[in-house]
Parts: sequence; structure tokens; C-alpha cells
Amino acid sequence: MATIVAPLNFSPVEDAEALRKAFEGWGSDEKTIISILGHRYSYQRQQIRKAYEELYQEDLVKRLESELSGDFEKAVYRWILEPADRDAVLAHVAIKSDNKDVIVEISCIYSPEELLAVRRAYHNRYKRSLEEDVAAHTTGDLRRLLVALVSTFRYGGDEINARLANSEADVLHDDIKDKKNHEEVIRILSTRSKSQLIATFNRYRDDHGSSITKHLLGESSDDFRKVLRTAIHCIVDLEKYYEKVLRNVIKKVGTDEDALTRVIVTRAEKDLKDIKELYLKRNSVPLELAVAKDTHGDYKDFLLTLLGKNE
Amino acid sequence: MATIVAPLNFSPVEDAEALRKAFEGWGSDEKTIISILGHRYSYQRQQIRKAYEELYQEDLVKRLESELSGDFEKAVYRWILEPADRDAVLAHVAIKSDNKDVIVEISCIYSPEELLAVRRAYHNRYKRSLEEDVAAHTTGDLRRLLVALVSTFRYGGDEINARLANSEADVLHDDIKDKKNHEEVIRILSTRSKSQLIATFNRYRDDHGSSITKHLLGESSDDFRKVLRTAIHCIVDLEKYYEKVLRNVIKKVGTDEDALTRVIVTRAEKDLKDIKELYLKRNSVPLELAVAKDTHGDYKDFLLTLLGKNE
Repeated sequence: MATIVAPLNFSPVEDAEALRKAFEGWGSDEKTIISILGHRYSYQRQQIRKAYEELYQEDLVKRLESELSGDFEKAVYRWILEPADRDAVLAHVAIKSDNKDVIVEISCIYSPEELLAVRRAYHNRYKRSLEEDVAAHTTGDLRRLLVALVSTFRYGGDEINARLANSEADVLHDDIKDKKNHEEVIRILSTRSKSQLIATFNRYRDDHGSSITKHLLGESSDDFRKVLRTAIHCIVDLEKYYEKVLRNVIKKVGTDEDALTRVIVTRAEKDLKDIKELYLKRNSVPLELAVAKDTHGDYKDFLLTLLGKNE
Repeated sequence: MATIVAPLNFSPVEDAEALRKAFEGWGSDEKTIISILGHRYSYQRQQIRKAYEELYQEDLVKRLESELSGDFEKAVYRWILEPADRDAVLAHVAIKSDNKDVIVEISCIYSPEELLAVRRAYHNRYKRSLEEDVAAHTTGDLRRLLVALVSTFRYGGDEINARLANSEADVLHDDIKDKKNHEEVIRILSTRSKSQLIATFNRYRDDHGSSITKHLLGESSDDFRKVLRTAIHCIVDLEKYYEKVLRNVIKKVGTDEDALTRVIVTRAEKDLKDIKELYLKRNSVPLELAVAKDTHGDYKDFLLTLLGKNE
């Protein structure tokens, strides 16, 4: 379930006017900006953006970028973009960085149609395909894996072929032990449906004494194996995966604001409530409290609003 | 341009009734079936199918299958299905056969959104993804190439990066000479936009004295190189490609009815007129005449109707 609280009845024009007012005068009124944008669903934010453009012949996103700064600006920017467009931006940044988590998340957590929407948004924004940019910035096995993952259009049904799960559990086991050739593990991870993959991973644990991710951990660690483990975690249990991302972010000395913003912004309208519950269960601290301790100012207020804090 | 001639005003109910009548009595009235279905656009055929189902609680496609036989039945079946669904059927057959042309055509000729529609139709029909079935029935370089081609979602714009075309022409040249590793040629062919690829192939010819397909022909021939050449032909000039398919089909002793049906059925509503003109120019024989000489009966009448013959 979602965490954000938004009114069903709202006026895009009134919101646009209130935002305009918040921008005027000495410095902008961040409280108002948070109280409006932090309480609107994606389709409502797009309507506000449109109303603002019509009223003032100015792009609301550009205006927000010029009014705000730092982590708060980044978070509001990611929040106000249409989700697929935002994910295209996140993927574009990740492609050039060492951390490919975003790319794996988009490929392995999103539904086939959601992934496709991101690929379409990537075309529109960058005039290139997501897969060609991923390929241009990686090499070797890691490239083969990431390109295959972002290119997939998995079958979304629940049907499971038990015989196949059995045989491919063995194929995965052999392939992981083999240091040279990871063609089969890439093929299986990037083409099979999620239901089928989960059946295969279960079978792997039954037949080979330990989970595939544990076995991967035992092997020499490199970027390929790291990304592979992330992909498997994303496929098997997305809430558990996100809880762990948040836990690692918050544990770190110096918070990784980009990851913190990403998880909260991308999940606030989807399942952040479930992730919060899992976080509390695992860490014995409410996520809001942990986030409040690690952040400050408008950035903190904005994240807490998205986390559904009572006002 | 298309070859089929269809009325703008038509009644799905009247057509359904006329078809029903054609099925009744001793043997069915093939002339009527051809004169109706051969003169209706895809959206009209879908409306007729729906009207027929509502009137008679019977699937028109199933009824046609039981009434007709041989190449004629096959052609009508491929014609009456919704195009993406038909291509899913064609791909499914090709996956299990030695001839992978259909898969390359769908990947390299169709627009990104058309390819995607086929992948979606494949999910619906077979409860698996197109890429997983392709992967399950191929191996080695051929598998890597075909899986990458069907998984692509190319950027569709006209922008060209001339510097990139220059450097990737060299990469392709080196990769083709290398007998062991075709990673780069697969990456380039399966991720770059068509406009970019055409610029790269042009550059290749300028810098390396001959076209890439000529160089591929000079190398030892195997399935991988054969499919690669087909893919390049499809990307560079789809009409020339289809003309050649038709020429080879018709030259052969014993016509390859599947290929003949495929080209006519899949292109009749798109660009078969241009392909016909190219055929005449290259062979000094009108395509209709060549088809009429090589086929007979209802199958012949149906193909000629799709080819736009005057009645």
C-alpha cells in the first residue's frame, strides 16, 4: 500500500496559483510547496504542471529547479516528473555511475509494461535506447547481463513449468560454479517469467542445500555477481529488497541521499507502507524516525510527508 | 502502398451472414469467401469476426479452418488473424524450424511498437515470452544474436551520430574478421537505431571497400552469418529484401508456399505495391503473373486478390 495522503477532490488551478505565490517574495515558501506537492498523486501532479504552464507560460519543473536547491530540489524534481520519465532520468544517471542498482530495479521489479514505459520515456528524453546506452557503458559479462535484463519483456502470468524449474535449477548451479561462461544464467534470468524464476530458485535451494544468492556470495565477488544477486533479490521479494536498501543507506556513515530519495519517491504511491512495516519489524525502529534522524530541513520534511507522517 | 482494395463503407453483419451462407450446403463457396475477406482491411476483418461470433456463437476462424484446406486454408488463417497475433503464430512456427527469417523480419523490419505488439501477442497466445522460446531453441552466437534482436526496443528517430557511425564501422569490420567473438556485432545490430545503423553500414562501405553483407558472404557461411546478413538486408531496405524473398521463392523448383503466403499476407496492407514494382523492375515479369504461374486453385485466386488484381 501507498503512504502518501492525497485529497480526491482538488483544483489544479488553485494548486498552481498557490505554488506561484509560494515562489514569490524573498526566498520561496517551502512549507507550502511540500504541503501541496507532497499530498498529490502522480496524475494530480501532472494536472498541476499543466495548469501552471497554462496560467503562467512557465514550466513548473524548471521553476522548482531554480527556486530549490540541494537534496530537497533533487527529491522534488524526481517526485514531480511523470514516473516513467523520472525512472528514465534515474537510469541515465546510473548508467554513467558505478552503482547499477536502479537499472536492475527497473528491469526486475517493474512489471513488463512499466519497464517498457521507462524504455519509451528514455527514447523521448535522450533520443537513444536504454539498452544501447547500457551497452556503451559496460563490458563483458556485466554488459551481457544488464543489456539482457533491460531488454526483457517477461511473460507476466502465474503458470509454472515444474520440470523446467527442476532442470534450470541445475543449469544455474553449474553455470555459477563455472568461472568462464555465464550465458545460461543470463539467459534464464533475463527471459523467464518471475513466477517461473521463483519456482526455479526454490528448487535450487531444495536440491543444492542453500539458496542461489548464498552460493553467489561464496564465490569470488565481482560486479557481475553483485548485480546478479541484486537481480535475484529484486525478483524474489521486492519489499525485502527495498527494506535492505533503506537499512544500508541509514546504517552508512553519511547518508546516501540519492538512494534514500529514490526508494521513497518511487515507492510512496505503491507499496511504501508495506516496506515501512518490514523495516520496523527488522530494525525495531520506525522508518520515519530513522529518516528523521539522518536528514534535516526541507528535505527531511518532504520525505516524512511522502512517508505519510500525520500533520 | 497497399495492394488490397477494400470498401470504406461495409456492414460486418452482412459480411458475416454472407460468409455463413458460403459455408452451408455441399462444400463451401470459396469464391464468396475470397471476394469478402480478400477485400477487407484488418480492422474490418476483426469486426466481421466479432459480428459472426455474436450472430452464430461460433468462432469464424475455427469455422474457416474446418471448411478450407491446404495452402488456401493456411493463407486465409494468416490473413484473418489480427496482425500481431498472426506474427506471433509465424514466429512460433519459425522458432522450431531451421528457417529463422520470420524472426529476423519481425525484429528488424517492424517498428519498435509493432515488434512489441507481437511480443505481447506471443505472451497472450503461448503464455511464454518470445525471447525465452527463441533462447530455448537455439545455441551459441546464433542464440545471442536472435535473442538480442527480438528483445530490442530501438529508438525510432532520425538523428545520426556520424562519429559513432565511423567508429562502429571499424568495430564491425574487426568483429566480422574475428572468428571467435561476435559480441560487438550483436550489440551494435541489436541496440542502435535503424538510421544510425544505415549510417554505419554506409561508412563501412566507404572505409572498407565493400559492403558489410559482401564481406559476410566472403567469410565461411554458417547460420549465424546467414541470419546476420538477413538482419542487415531487413534494416537497410525492406522492399528490396522482400523482393528477393519472392524471387527466390518463385525461382525454386516447387514453390515455398509458406514464404510466399507470408510476404503477401503480411505486406498486402502495407507496401506490397512498392514491392511489386521492384519485382517487375528486377525480373521483367509482373509479380501477379509469376504467382499465377506457380500456384493454382483457390489459393492462387486468394493471393491474386490480395495482390490487387482487377476483377
